[in-house]
Amino acid sequence: MTGTLYLIPCPISDETAPWEVLPAANRAVMDGLDYFIVENTRTARRFLSRAGIARPIDELEFRELNEHTVAGRAVEELVEPLAVGRSAGVISEAGVPGVADPGALVVEACHRRGIRVVPLVGPSSIILAVMASGLNGQSFAFNGYLPVKPGERTQAIRRYERRAQSERQTQLFIEAPYRNVKLLEELLRTLAPATRLGVAADLTAPGERVEVHTVAEWRERPLPGLHKRPAIFLIGA
Amino acid sequence: MTGTLYLIPCPISDETAPWEVLPAANRAVMDGLDYFIVENTRTARRFLSRAGIARPIDELEFRELNEHTVAGRAVEELVEPLAVGRSAGVISEAGVPGVADPGALVVEACHRRGIRVVPLVGPSSIILAVMASGLNGQSFAFNGYLPVKPGERTQAIRRYERRAQSERQTQLFIEAPYRNVKLLEELLRTLAPATRLGVAADLTAPGERVEVHTVAEWRERPLPGLHKRPAIFLIGA
Repeated sequence: MTGTLYLIPCPISDETAPWEVLPAANRAVMDGLDYFIVENTRTARRFLSRAGIARPIDELEFRELNEHTVAGRAVEELVEPLAVGRSAGVISEAGVPGVADPGALVVEACHRRGIRVVPLVGPSSIILAVMASGLNGQSFAFNGYLPVKPGERTQAIRRYERRAQSERQTQLFIEAPYRNVKLLEELLRTLAPATRLGVAADLTAPGERVEVHTVAEWRERPLPGLHKRPAIFLIGA
Repeated sequence: MTGTLYLIPCPISDETAPWEVLPAANRAVMDGLDYFIVENTRTARRFLSRAGIARPIDELEFRELNEHTVAGRAVEELVEPLAVGRSAGVISEAGVPGVADPGALVVEACHRRGIRVVPLVGPSSIILAVMASGLNGQSFAFNGYLPVKPGERTQAIRRYERRAQSERQTQLFIEAPYRNVKLLEELLRTLAPATRLGVAADLTAPGERVEVHTVAEWRERPLPGLHKRPAIFLIGA
């Protein structure tokens, strides 16, 4: 009998207590595990401690899989215990694991070996942003981080705008929070006046703010203070 | 002072109790509302009743917005009470509202009037499927329902496969559950042997099953019984 890989969401924001954004039923799963594959051991321990799980944190085993360890570490080795019956939880830095973090590699290895994968419910800034935007949710794409180089960046923005218009597909992307203000200014310079632009900042946190306007409207308004606040950007038709 | 529009998720599956998949904190919001804009009054009442909210269901006001009413009904009229201080909850047939349902029109109207929109956490089959697939979650697109006409359908499948390969963008789509078996057969005929195909069925329900294999591998395996089971399909690189 093989183990099960549970994908365990945690809060998006440090300002939010775990059980404000997670179903209480997740706790029974978390209580039953003693092996965790995590993006960052310190934040994962802190999350489990704040969540008040049943076992002492010091008795749990944590193994890291992140951008620094992923090249050297054999993912197969992390999954080995599941092949012989032990279950594991995957925890990312924030939100749902397996979407924009190396946890996906563990999931892939489990599917290859026929190990069951169970995703638990939790906060995803992507889906919260689509919900709260009012932009087309029948067709949308998450594109991850914008390119850093100025030329490629402008090209990517133009490509997303074209696709939002020609396919009516809402385009989402993110930026390192300290560059959010510059990005918003660049979007307002680059996009057409009639294009709809959404900004969802500090989702699930007390300062949460979701605004959607045409670019022409944005240009007339005072801009929100986005500096270092986690935000997700949306372009609509 | 204007009201707030709350986007209130409900379970994806009838077999799942509300508080297994919803954070307990959603309850405080639900308890505070007496006005709901819903896709289907009967299922919304049933959900609120199963959730055990504080107020008697009969004292709540429900107004429907769905594919049948959306053309005739002025969305502005539904939002009018929020402009004068009343808050409202949006509830769709299943899962998170505002993504693949007419709730997005209400959200749009609120943004136009400067009414605050707050999305609550809950189950989204789209994000659960991406998490559990192990396919690329740094870039993915949800494309809604496949076209029904055979020619357009095959073209759409080929377009998704090309995009999954050329952009490394995972492509998600859905089908009416009674056509799932035919769709899976068609996918196995149409896609290249090396293309990765995922099927996430009955998410959050007791029969949940997520499988990801190459098309060549799928062709060698017994197919899962997908008839009339809600499922979401994923194509990866």
